[in-house]
Amino acid sequence: MSLLVVGSVALDSVKTPAGEVTDALGGSATYFSMAARLFSAVSVVGVVGQDFPEEHIGLLKSHGIDVSGIQFAEGKTFRWAGAYDGDMSVAETLDTQLNVFADFDPQLSSEAKETEFLFLANIHPSLQRRVLEQVTGAKLTFCDTMNLWIETQLDEVKALLEGVTGIILNDQEGRMLTGEANLVRAGRTIIDMGPRLVVIKKGEHGALLISEDDVIPLPAYPLSEVVDPTGAGDSFAGGLMGYLAESGEASLDTLKAAVAHGIVTSSFCCEAFSLDRLKDVSRNDIDSRLRLFRDKLVF
Amino acid sequence: MSLLVVGSVALDSVKTPAGEVTDALGGSATYFSMAARLFSAVSVVGVVGQDFPEEHIGLLKSHGIDVSGIQFAEGKTFRWAGAYDGDMSVAETLDTQLNVFADFDPQLSSEAKETEFLFLANIHPSLQRRVLEQVTGAKLTFCDTMNLWIETQLDEVKALLEGVTGIILNDQEGRMLTGEANLVRAGRTIIDMGPRLVVIKKGEHGALLISEDDVIPLPAYPLSEVVDPTGAGDSFAGGLMGYLAESGEASLDTLKAAVAHGIVTSSFCCEAFSLDRLKDVSRNDIDSRLRLFRDKLVF
Repeated sequence: MSLLVVGSVALDSVKTPAGEVTDALGGSATYFSMAARLFSAVSVVGVVGQDFPEEHIGLLKSHGIDVSGIQFAEGKTFRWAGAYDGDMSVAETLDTQLNVFADFDPQLSSEAKETEFLFLANIHPSLQRRVLEQVTGAKLTFCDTMNLWIETQLDEVKALLEGVTGIILNDQEGRMLTGEANLVRAGRTIIDMGPRLVVIKKGEHGALLISEDDVIPLPAYPLSEVVDPTGAGDSFAGGLMGYLAESGEASLDTLKAAVAHGIVTSSFCCEAFSLDRLKDVSRNDIDSRLRLFRDKLVF
Repeated sequence: MSLLVVGSVALDSVKTPAGEVTDALGGSATYFSMAARLFSAVSVVGVVGQDFPEEHIGLLKSHGIDVSGIQFAEGKTFRWAGAYDGDMSVAETLDTQLNVFADFDPQLSSEAKETEFLFLANIHPSLQRRVLEQVTGAKLTFCDTMNLWIETQLDEVKALLEGVTGIILNDQEGRMLTGEANLVRAGRTIIDMGPRLVVIKKGEHGALLISEDDVIPLPAYPLSEVVDPTGAGDSFAGGLMGYLAESGEASLDTLKAAVAHGIVTSSFCCEAFSLDRLKDVSRNDIDSRLRLFRDKLVF
């Protein structure tokens, strides 16, 4: 089934205890699509500047990702700089340059408007809503959000939540959005706001899938070395939604498997900077690690 | 098989967002034994003061726990006061009165010395070692420890680790003991110190079981309301070791199941203050919740 992501395509400068990179390929839509392509056809809607290296577009294309929705605008590409320390659970943002992303106003092609699965990566909630309004026949829409929007655009976030099937957000955001310290209750409170599915990402601790009737906790795939967690959340979402798009439905069993596929996909993302590991991962790699993961959880 | 715990029997005053209790039954050996009795015979070695309510001893006895190793000493019982807030992952200690626990020097009976499974709950590491030296035929010994001993008695903790089969400690303690932020590497570093098994408790995020060859992550059983997390770690250890003592061996499959039993047992502990929930839990309750837990992890 068709899968579309709307989000950032960026150049990231990242420092972790394992090293650093400058102006490396990044962005939520980039990580999402490089993950989702393992399971499903995927199209990206985003914007880059004139300075965006052609080779990055070539990399996405060579992985079968539809980049026809990536617009080249006058100006420079969105840049993010951040650093991680300790358990690397939280990034310290050192610099954000919105550049061409500041005027991003996604216009979907007629084909894009008919996508069946839609992921609204973390952009301003009013833009997320404008995309949602353009997509006429989406079977399943997930959105992401961030602390900034919860703090400054809460009404917009809440309006968005009324129109999506689900939200994928991290534990801090879930707590901030609901005022509930308990994550199960936070998830249930978000369900009361509109979506029927809530996926709470917990970094090295895995994820919680919460629906009205079920709470499914899955741990992260254990890694003895995390090189760079940047993009882990978006590659998790890409693995999850790519698997759903491949399956074509969203029963509880499929959703659980989708979360597991997201966890395994994101574990590869963390093993190198930028897309360096994820770009070389095959479906076979995913399936092998998924078997190991499944075996760990049998008792 | 025989199971022995050496640790504290205490009176706790605890405040959480759900309420508070004063001088309620607590202590590591108490929680451990009330959990372990669900699976195995269990004996407690500890000390209380003359003020310790007889009804608490009666409660343990009525659950089949061997309390003949609990000594009544001159003076007052060990008291701990603490408070939890927010996600309740960390207790703020408000007061500690060691009282009779200050002079605790556990002398094991000839029967206790022959225990096959031994849990050295969190007491001074030199006392833990003195107990270990008295037990002659232990098949499997786990210890706990705490930040205070890692900071002030590191040599004693390391000497203890050379003599135990495994250690059950929380994530902060694992990081502090090894200087490793990554928990898998922290576990492997602890294995290099002596024990062949490391279980890292992560509170609401579950636990990691680490051996030389395997890393098993299990999530916590999700609860929509945590009333009081006091004793969760010791009831986890009690469920884990009680199940091992029942099984009589410690293969990887049995260890995984033991961790799962620990997780489910500790989830009941959190549902009320003190031992109020755990005392009413039956093996049937454990098995029912274990089935739900297992189903959640199948994908």
